Amino acid sequence: MTRGFYIGRFQPFHNGHRNMVEQIADDVDELVLGIGSADDSHTTRNPFTAGERIMMITKSLVDFDIVTYAVPIEDLERNSVWVSHVQSMSPDFDIAYSNNPLVIQLFREAGIDVRQSPMFNREVLEGTEVRERMITDGEWEPLVPEAVVEIVDEIGGIERLQMISGSDSNGE
Amino acid sequence: MTRGFYIGRFQPFHNGHRNMVEQIADDVDELVLGIGSADDSHTTRNPFTAGERIMMITKSLVDFDIVTYAVPIEDLERNSVWVSHVQSMSPDFDIAYSNNPLVIQLFREAGIDVRQSPMFNREVLEGTEVRERMITDGEWEPLVPEAVVEIVDEIGGIERLQMISGSDSNGE
Amino acid sequence: MTRGFYIGRFQPFHNGHRNMVEQIADDVDELVLGIGSADDSHTTRNPFTAGERIMMITKSLVDFDIVTYAVPIEDLERNSVWVSHVQSMSPDFDIAYSNNPLVIQLFREAGIDVRQSPMFNREVLEGTEVRERMITDGEWEPLVPEAVVEIVDEIGGIERLQMISGSDSNGE
Amino acid sequence: MTRGFYIGRFQPFHNGHRNMVEQIADDVDELVLGIGSADDSHTTRNPFTAGERIMMITKSLVDFDIVTYAVPIEDLERNSVWVSHVQSMSPDFDIAYSNNPLVIQLFREAGIDVRQSPMFNREVLEGTEVRERMITDGEWEPLVPEAVVEIVDEIGGIERLQMISGSDSNGE
Amino acid sequence: MTRGFYIGRFQPFHNGHRNMVEQIADDVDELVLGIGSADDSHTTRNPFTAGERIMMITKSLVDFDIVTYAVPIEDLERNSVWVSHVQSMSPDFDIAYSNNPLVIQLFREAGIDVRQSPMFNREVLEGTEVRERMITDGEWEPLVPEAVVEIVDEIGGIERLQMISGSDSNGE
Amino acid sequence: MTRGFYIGRFQPFHNGHRNMVEQIADDVDELVLGIGSADDSHTTRNPFTAGERIMMITKSLVDFDIVTYAVPIEDLERNSVWVSHVQSMSPDFDIAYSNNPLVIQLFREAGIDVRQSPMFNREVLEGTEVRERMITDGEWEPLVPEAVVEIVDEIGGIERLQMISGSDSNGE
Repeated sequence: MTRGFYIGRFQPFHNGHRNMVEQIADDVDELVLGIGSADDSHTTRNPFTAGERIMMITKSLVDFDIVTYAVPIEDLERNSVWVSHVQSMSPDFDIAYSNNPLVIQLFREAGIDVRQSPMFNREVLEGTEVRERMITDGEWEPLVPEAVVEIVDEIGGIERLQMISGSDSNGE
Repeated sequence: MTRGFYIGRFQPFHNGHRNMVEQIADDVDELVLGIGSADDSHTTRNPFTAGERIMMITKSLVDFDIVTYAVPIEDLERNSVWVSHVQSMSPDFDIAYSNNPLVIQLFREAGIDVRQSPMFNREVLEGTEVRERMITDGEWEPLVPEAVVEIVDEIGGIERLQMISGSDSNGE
Repeated sequence: MTRGFYIGRFQPFHNGHRNMVEQIADDVDELVLGIGSADDSHTTRNPFTAGERIMMITKSLVDFDIVTYAVPIEDLERNSVWVSHVQSMSPDFDIAYSNNPLVIQLFREAGIDVRQSPMFNREVLEGTEVRERMITDGEWEPLVPEAVVEIVDEIGGIERLQMISGSDSNGE
Repeated sequence: MTRGFYIGRFQPFHNGHRNMVEQIADDVDELVLGIGSADDSHTTRNPFTAGERIMMITKSLVDFDIVTYAVPIEDLERNSVWVSHVQSMSPDFDIAYSNNPLVIQLFREAGIDVRQSPMFNREVLEGTEVRERMITDGEWEPLVPEAVVEIVDEIGGIERLQMISGSDSNGE
Repeated sequence: MTRGFYIGRFQPFHNGHRNMVEQIADDVDELVLGIGSADDSHTTRNPFTAGERIMMITKSLVDFDIVTYAVPIEDLERNSVWVSHVQSMSPDFDIAYSNNPLVIQLFREAGIDVRQSPMFNREVLEGTEVRERMITDGEWEPLVPEAVVEIVDEIGGIERLQMISGSDSNGE
Repeated sequence: MTRGFYIGRFQPFHNGHRNMVEQIADDVDELVLGIGSADDSHTTRNPFTAGERIMMITKSLVDFDIVTYAVPIEDLERNSVWVSHVQSMSPDFDIAYSNNPLVIQLFREAGIDVRQSPMFNREVLEGTEVRERMITDGEWEPLVPEAVVEIVDEIGGIERLQMISGSDSNGE
């Protein structure tokens, strides 16, 4: 049995993420999706809560054959203990998937096998693109799984993102 | 669609927990299992990491009909914001299940419907009992689902618990 | 102009505290009441939130001649920086009032004038006594200012304290 | 009895803030002034400590008819629990006043009545303007209440702000 | 070149610790002394600051032949990341020395070689004994290196410990 | 006996730092080197861990006549308690050395003697210059003590810095 670990912020979970999972599914029997910056929400860069992102991931992957786990990972703000933090929060895994240079470096220094994919970069771009379209009333729906459209609607996600995009701080 | 929230530390997930889930399954379509004190591990009271507990829960409930989510909840050490913290980490829920007086009070002050069950108390006793038997080489296996026996074996859980039960602090 | 600083947890603000303020009022023109453990609430030892305690203090001292400030002080869990923390949160003060040995030692090491009073000990005893009577449906009302009785009633304080007194932890 | 909550950083408390309080005073009997980023100080954006800001607010509002509370609110860096945090630190309130989009969104999601005012924007601009003039030896005194001028002088506020405006970090 | 790591709280550094260092010096070329609970001070269990303990260790070991490093390790309150935290704060080491069961277990799970010594237990007892004698005006001086006697005198350590031993908390 | 305190991030320790220590050595008998942002690592601005920086400092100063201490100082993110934090982590000192305006202001408000030097600015520039050359395969070796070259090589520091310089965040 092989288990993979795929870290992202999933703000929101979009088609690029789903494609990545499809690709990874060829390598592993089970896949943990680590939801990074889990404690952040209501910002332009991280609009959705961890709970909302768990829903997006779980509902989007319901028809996939591999077993998946959606696990929130709160920020620790300490790169030197980040891998241990991830390992304590996640079911044990054999391979990490990431294209982020810092993540790759941290996993490597800890002796963990990391695999990259050309797809990752596209995925990052898509996250920004989806949020941008949400803010500007653009066509964001085609970029995400149908389940995500439903969840964003239910929680008033577009209104939230449009509201907070005019703001940078608490108070004054 | 009704979703329930059931908070516990699940150290480890045992038959009392599984029975509770069975009972709750009559009320709800989906159930979130909130793993309390997720950031604690390697103590007599909290021997297992959040990741290990996610595995125990998921593998033990694999045959249940309702959709379940296992969500780690890190301690915030602030009762006044605890409910908001839980709500941000968990998929949205309609009913909370607990027999812990503090948890009940906090949910009630936040206007959330809480249900109690006589079963909860038995469950608390069983958690302590299971750990006690693990430490003293007693018969703990009959008290937990088979999947939990396998996971505890794989991670060397008995050795870990027996080792740390002779210790109270880091250093000196 | 002389300003005093009087630290307590004020759980709740009771007649012993009010008497202390009366006594201190002979020494100073203005008095800061530092509300310790401001971030703690909903425990047997710290049942009330900082906001509730600000109300109790302000309403109880409304007829006093000296200017008073009620300032929440969150716990930092670091004795070595505690005095600096207090100084940054409070209007500047000339004299600190406390009978707590640790507080006296910390202020003294920082070169701040601290005054003790035999009254303080009585006051500590009264805090525990008031909470004990609240839990056991005893006669707590005569031990606190009238304004505190009203506030405790409004917020359902007795029910809260009685509920949580049966509990020690979140979850399980 | 109606109580309002008005959040700001008050760095420093200036005439725009005082005008806002005057306007809000028509709606409410009591007003809580929540001092945001209370734990921040000695930066160009947040030069004054919470204690200094409490003094500025209290001394500036001493002749106002409504009861006011100046309450420091430390940053929690978690938008999802921010409203609960504010509620635990503040006397209970009925209406929140803010023009900050994030604050409005957070209060609204928590079901709290928020009121905006065209005056708020002017106020934000004035905060930056006052600090800019302090740094460049400009005419900042006409923009703040007289009590604030006195406090800034007493604490050596201009010298502090001018000194730190040449710096971005601790160390190296 | 072999480097060892020896963790303790060193409250204070006493003859038992010095003997341990002597014994370890046979195995290694360099030794890191990790000062646990570095952020704690002014309590009966942890009376001295990290800075004071660095002085005690450095002055007591000045005549030893091996190179030593005294490194403060702040508590993280998370056993699962504790080893990574220690590794990031300390010069790289080959062997860890401890008799504490939790510390041994954590290092072992991280694949680090840990050595125990019968001497360790005696050492723990001595720490408590030294502090007890300091509080009760007993003969503590023979239990610690001469340099420690001087440092404790200079900082008023006996007065501090005697004062705080009558206290359990900040405030009330 | 006079002891100085010199704060820096030492990312890495370079010739500018060593020259500063030489200069300070004329004033003091002992010198504490406070390693700022000790908990930060694996970023472009703070590539090396505290433990790695302790090694660099200790090995580079081994031939100096004055006694030196290399003490990691974790960030507290609270300017108002920063001096107390430093004082608790460091052996007691008489003079602080810094050219950073914020650091100077904080020490001065705490009544501590601070000395500046024209050399400091050069030193800051050199830190950035060294890291820039490390990233771009430039000639960084002549800018640092020989011991630092060895340590950077041993830990794979150039590879680490080049890797992470392409990254800004964990995840996505």
